[in-house]
Amino acid sequence: MKKIIVQKYGGTSVENIKKMKNIVNRVIKLYDEGHSIVLVISAMGKTTDHLVEMAKAITENPDKRELDMLISTGEQVSVSLISIIFKSLGYDSISLTGYQAGIVTSSDYNKGKIADIDISKIKKYLQEKKIVIVAGFQGITENGDITTLGRGGSDTTAVALAAKLQSICEIYTDVDGIYAIDPKKYKNAQLLSEISYEEMMELSNLGAKVMEMRSVEMGKIFNVPIHIGNSVTGIIGTIIKDEDQLMEKKIITGLATEHNVAMVTISDVLYQSGDIYKIFNLLSEGEINIDMISQTAPIDGKINVSLSTPSLDVDSLKSVLKDYHTHKLYVDENMTKISVVGIGMIDQSGVASKLFNIFDNLGIHFKQVTTSEISISFIVNNEDSYSLIEEIAKAFNLSNN
Amino acid sequence: MKKIIVQKYGGTSVENIKKMKNIVNRVIKLYDEGHSIVLVISAMGKTTDHLVEMAKAITENPDKRELDMLISTGEQVSVSLISIIFKSLGYDSISLTGYQAGIVTSSDYNKGKIADIDISKIKKYLQEKKIVIVAGFQGITENGDITTLGRGGSDTTAVALAAKLQSICEIYTDVDGIYAIDPKKYKNAQLLSEISYEEMMELSNLGAKVMEMRSVEMGKIFNVPIHIGNSVTGIIGTIIKDEDQLMEKKIITGLATEHNVAMVTISDVLYQSGDIYKIFNLLSEGEINIDMISQTAPIDGKINVSLSTPSLDVDSLKSVLKDYHTHKLYVDENMTKISVVGIGMIDQSGVASKLFNIFDNLGIHFKQVTTSEISISFIVNNEDSYSLIEEIAKAFNLSNN
Repeated sequence: MKKIIVQKYGGTSVENIKKMKNIVNRVIKLYDEGHSIVLVISAMGKTTDHLVEMAKAITENPDKRELDMLISTGEQVSVSLISIIFKSLGYDSISLTGYQAGIVTSSDYNKGKIADIDISKIKKYLQEKKIVIVAGFQGITENGDITTLGRGGSDTTAVALAAKLQSICEIYTDVDGIYAIDPKKYKNAQLLSEISYEEMMELSNLGAKVMEMRSVEMGKIFNVPIHIGNSVTGIIGTIIKDEDQLMEKKIITGLATEHNVAMVTISDVLYQSGDIYKIFNLLSEGEINIDMISQTAPIDGKINVSLSTPSLDVDSLKSVLKDYHTHKLYVDENMTKISVVGIGMIDQSGVASKLFNIFDNLGIHFKQVTTSEISISFIVNNEDSYSLIEEIAKAFNLSNN
Repeated sequence: MKKIIVQKYGGTSVENIKKMKNIVNRVIKLYDEGHSIVLVISAMGKTTDHLVEMAKAITENPDKRELDMLISTGEQVSVSLISIIFKSLGYDSISLTGYQAGIVTSSDYNKGKIADIDISKIKKYLQEKKIVIVAGFQGITENGDITTLGRGGSDTTAVALAAKLQSICEIYTDVDGIYAIDPKKYKNAQLLSEISYEEMMELSNLGAKVMEMRSVEMGKIFNVPIHIGNSVTGIIGTIIKDEDQLMEKKIITGLATEHNVAMVTISDVLYQSGDIYKIFNLLSEGEINIDMISQTAPIDGKINVSLSTPSLDVDSLKSVLKDYHTHKLYVDENMTKISVVGIGMIDQSGVASKLFNIFDNLGIHFKQVTTSEISISFIVNNEDSYSLIEEIAKAFNLSNN
């Protein structure tokens, strides 16, 4: 039976007319085979950045509603151009803004959440055999104001449409799929043919760039298989799907790294007082990004608190805490956070010990460790991270060879 | 009493952030005086042209619906940027697309006609003391598709909004107002402090560029006074108003010229047969622009038909008529059409004779003449046009001195 297919193409995939034509030609083949096609398109190349720059040239903090009004034009340009290409080739297509596609969001400008999609118009156009081209990343509030969905928003549009249309969702990007490790950091990284929603969410959260967490989460909630493929070749490398449908549960599926992290240790914090709260309150007011947090057991009523933060935030952190001089502050910069993620960890003990063994063999010490149900993260020196990635990849089959 | 003021700014008036800020500062003064302000804004500078070029790079004839979807983004960018400026200065403003402003049009893409405006949202925002900024040139069909209004469309948006809000309408442009003669063609041209809708329509129709005919017509129908001013200085030079409210009815209000016109005479056309029809049908199918038409009285059952056309169309015209060789074709290129317009002509005889006298004194012959109720147009050689403009300007007080 012929299917409805939702395909999403990101900004680099539509950055010029030539690339658009390449996509159009591939879609035409699918259409000619009888499939119903819904495309979700991002703004061309760096368009969104340029529009934001225009607004920032006026003021550092442009009004959020107006910023959404401004940047939503980027996708409107790309969907209309793609529809012009289809029409010029004699194919019946129609481009739709978020509003026209029935995408209703919360009124959180710059980070709208899809509240509902009135899918009736898209269904009608599909019945009329039109190729439907939806502007990604945008919607409209109940009041009729334009919103954008925030980072990775076009993915969310695509997954949400696929959920409503009960179709599969194909996300095309400039890589072949999801790799166990970022190929820029480890060239032999294995391309994963499948990964569970949970693992993908954890990897996204830990810094893997291909998919934003929100769209994966939506895929999980509505059980939409997400196919990740290369926009140039059209080849699907990875399918994100339900844990139960994985062919094989790997202990470790992927590894994410984050370089240039700083480890900050605050010593002699008073235990059982508002001291910890006060510190974190100051950090929060100062908009310091805090990631991993750990604390030592109290000795003589005092504890040490360690936290990791992007190196960029270290100066602000010092300045925020400068009025709080009862404590000593130790800062280690140039650290890397390495996280291993795998749904198999839930059932399988001994992952941590296998990892600790690798550290031991390499003579590398980690500065901090935290765990979640399906991940373990370490903070190590930047220079130690490369050999660690190599050894972890070998030990857990994350490599090609 | 404080008024609602609708102000329209064209593309050159908002071509960069500096010019936008200039406008915003002037509007703020009016707002601080207690007026309610609705701005209608065109796309920045050459934006629309650039967007059309992108579409034309795909195909010579881009789909019209999709083209409107594309080019309507131009105004959306400018209204949001202007609103960001107001907000950055602490003024409460809101930008609206054609759809959000309630502008419903016919579904004639690229030349939509405003069918109705649901003004309730704008009124609500004005009551909330917001400065309302509407994207010109665009609307939406009953079906929710985006349309543009064609040339001069932002003027039409402004006049239509002023009609609905029962307010005055100020059109700001890069000249001081309406001149009796295009100052580029006659430097001493008089700035007209007032002109009737009918005269303005006739002048627009005859090639005067400042206002498009449709918006003036709408002003006339809804009796909206249209103030024309300079976007840089803010000074209003001309008011377009009802004939009955003119301070003074001039015999001749203005003069419009069109250079590089060709006069084509087709001789020996059979009278009382389908001959004329066939010729004009061929010209129409060939999309030849025909302006003035005249024919001689029949002699021996034959007539001569003369018509004027842009010189650019002459080659196409010859090729269209080449299969129709029973007639002779005489072509005079490098001609100028001079038209004088004045509502006073209706009551005042002798305008034509005064004009003929000027021709006679200068020893200039015209090739063709046509008249309407409030205008007379002549075709003359390009080189004769300059002295004629000079003398007509003097004779009918169209000059500054």
